[in-house]
Amino acid sequence: MTSQLIALDWGTSRLRAYLLDDVSRVVEERNEPFGIMNLPEGGFAAAFHSACGDWVAAEPDLPILASGMVGSRLGWAEVPYHECPADLAGLASQLGEVELDNGRTLYVVSGVSMDPEGQVPDVMRGEETQVYGAVGEADNATIVLPGTHSKWVRVENGAITSFATFMTGELYELMSTQSILAKTMDVTSAFDPVAFDDGVSAGVDGFVADGVLHHLFGVRSLSLFGRLTPSAASSYLSGLLVGAEVGGATRAGRTESGTRLIILGDPEITERYMDALDVAGLSGEPGPPNAAAAGLYRIAARAGLFGGN
Amino acid sequence: MTSQLIALDWGTSRLRAYLLDDVSRVVEERNEPFGIMNLPEGGFAAAFHSACGDWVAAEPDLPILASGMVGSRLGWAEVPYHECPADLAGLASQLGEVELDNGRTLYVVSGVSMDPEGQVPDVMRGEETQVYGAVGEADNATIVLPGTHSKWVRVENGAITSFATFMTGELYELMSTQSILAKTMDVTSAFDPVAFDDGVSAGVDGFVADGVLHHLFGVRSLSLFGRLTPSAASSYLSGLLVGAEVGGATRAGRTESGTRLIILGDPEITERYMDALDVAGLSGEPGPPNAAAAGLYRIAARAGLFGGN
Repeated sequence: MTSQLIALDWGTSRLRAYLLDDVSRVVEERNEPFGIMNLPEGGFAAAFHSACGDWVAAEPDLPILASGMVGSRLGWAEVPYHECPADLAGLASQLGEVELDNGRTLYVVSGVSMDPEGQVPDVMRGEETQVYGAVGEADNATIVLPGTHSKWVRVENGAITSFATFMTGELYELMSTQSILAKTMDVTSAFDPVAFDDGVSAGVDGFVADGVLHHLFGVRSLSLFGRLTPSAASSYLSGLLVGAEVGGATRAGRTESGTRLIILGDPEITERYMDALDVAGLSGEPGPPNAAAAGLYRIAARAGLFGGN
Repeated sequence: MTSQLIALDWGTSRLRAYLLDDVSRVVEERNEPFGIMNLPEGGFAAAFHSACGDWVAAEPDLPILASGMVGSRLGWAEVPYHECPADLAGLASQLGEVELDNGRTLYVVSGVSMDPEGQVPDVMRGEETQVYGAVGEADNATIVLPGTHSKWVRVENGAITSFATFMTGELYELMSTQSILAKTMDVTSAFDPVAFDDGVSAGVDGFVADGVLHHLFGVRSLSLFGRLTPSAASSYLSGLLVGAEVGGATRAGRTESGTRLIILGDPEITERYMDALDVAGLSGEPGPPNAAAAGLYRIAARAGLFGGN
């Protein structure tokens, strides 16, 4: 077993480091709380050494590739967004670079942007790499990446051709803790799948009748009428927002007939999205685990970072 | 000029008291910060006396009628909601009562609820009274009441037949101060009417493409692309949410051709909603000032609180 790549999935709140072998398997893995908004003393270099300084010391010639917010304006090195369409070759051809104190280079994947004439632009950093850990070069699919800012990414013939962001996770967090709805719910309750499905139905339907701004208030009125218990209310709200996301993406043509829908998230959230798609009359499949690591490996290979390989 | 009624518009954050004459004109007006969630020492009675104790002392026989959250579970006396349809006679026939320490009665208007089979219920308290200050008994109109929780109230032949609440104002507050969007905006900036209109367009259109959860993120990406300045971003966000409200209400059939749209709000917010309706291809008209006082007068008259009158 030969180590081949140090792969870093470096976001806002966490730094995940993977030591990958020559067939892209994870040899070792680190998970540090050192996201770019939460760096230790010593900043980016200290966070990097804490996560994988020992790997670098043991094999100083290993290439190093990072993706995520580490390439943003607030990151270690700002890498301009790659405009859509973005395929593997395109991403591999415009890596950013950070010179490390041992003289080696840390490469950084650009994000991807979309700025179509007359429309609102959109951006991602990190998700494009996860996408390339989940789809092959000839694939057609829509990749759903649930999260604070969920992404729906359209891939055609292996290239990212368009995508959209939804503030689902952040809205859930704010509404369940800071809004008047917080009073109606016990957020420590176990997940309630029936309430979640009811929420999804309201969220998907809400899109054609009054919309999500109205149905958010429904969380309160259902509670006032005793039809939603405090323990079920947070699952209902979660379903409502995921339903609004699925409904919106559907209206925008992101789920058209025949499109494979691949969900990339942790097992629990992936399960919820599969369920929500099912309620909406759609069908999703889970993506592979460690998609970021797999995507970093493929981009590194395409960029020729493995030398003779 | 004879005083005829003490009318109280008593909500969550404020208590507005009106002394009305025998043709419903405002003789005197008080505006206290004693909403039901912000009572002074001594509670409801102390707030009441602070607002209009002198009026009661001067004319102890004047009838007193209140509307708003004062009739809620957390209010001075819980008055059960009147189920839709609710006309003036119906509201006048089920007033709640609070016995005051001088032996007189303070009457309280019920709210209105909607609980159609198979749908999410909805509720209001106070807005029904404002509505009856704006429409006559044979009127057909949709009354729009912008606010923390905006209401769109359908009136047919003078009766409230249906309505919907939108969490527009609360969502604006949370998104502009607590979300990632807060970083992109200077909320102290003057209102920017062009950015507001752009937001309305995105909000109305967003309803048929991805929806508001997506377009909220657009506030961030537009800022990243330098197409939205910090001083314009809060007006854009406001427009986006009002646009999503107008778009949702339109889809739900609340603005169908020929429906008069009457906006009941303070002059500034009414102006914004007129503008938003215009961007959406609709046409609104401002309602009368002091609609709550006028509505309380009409309900009091119908309830026979003026004795021989």
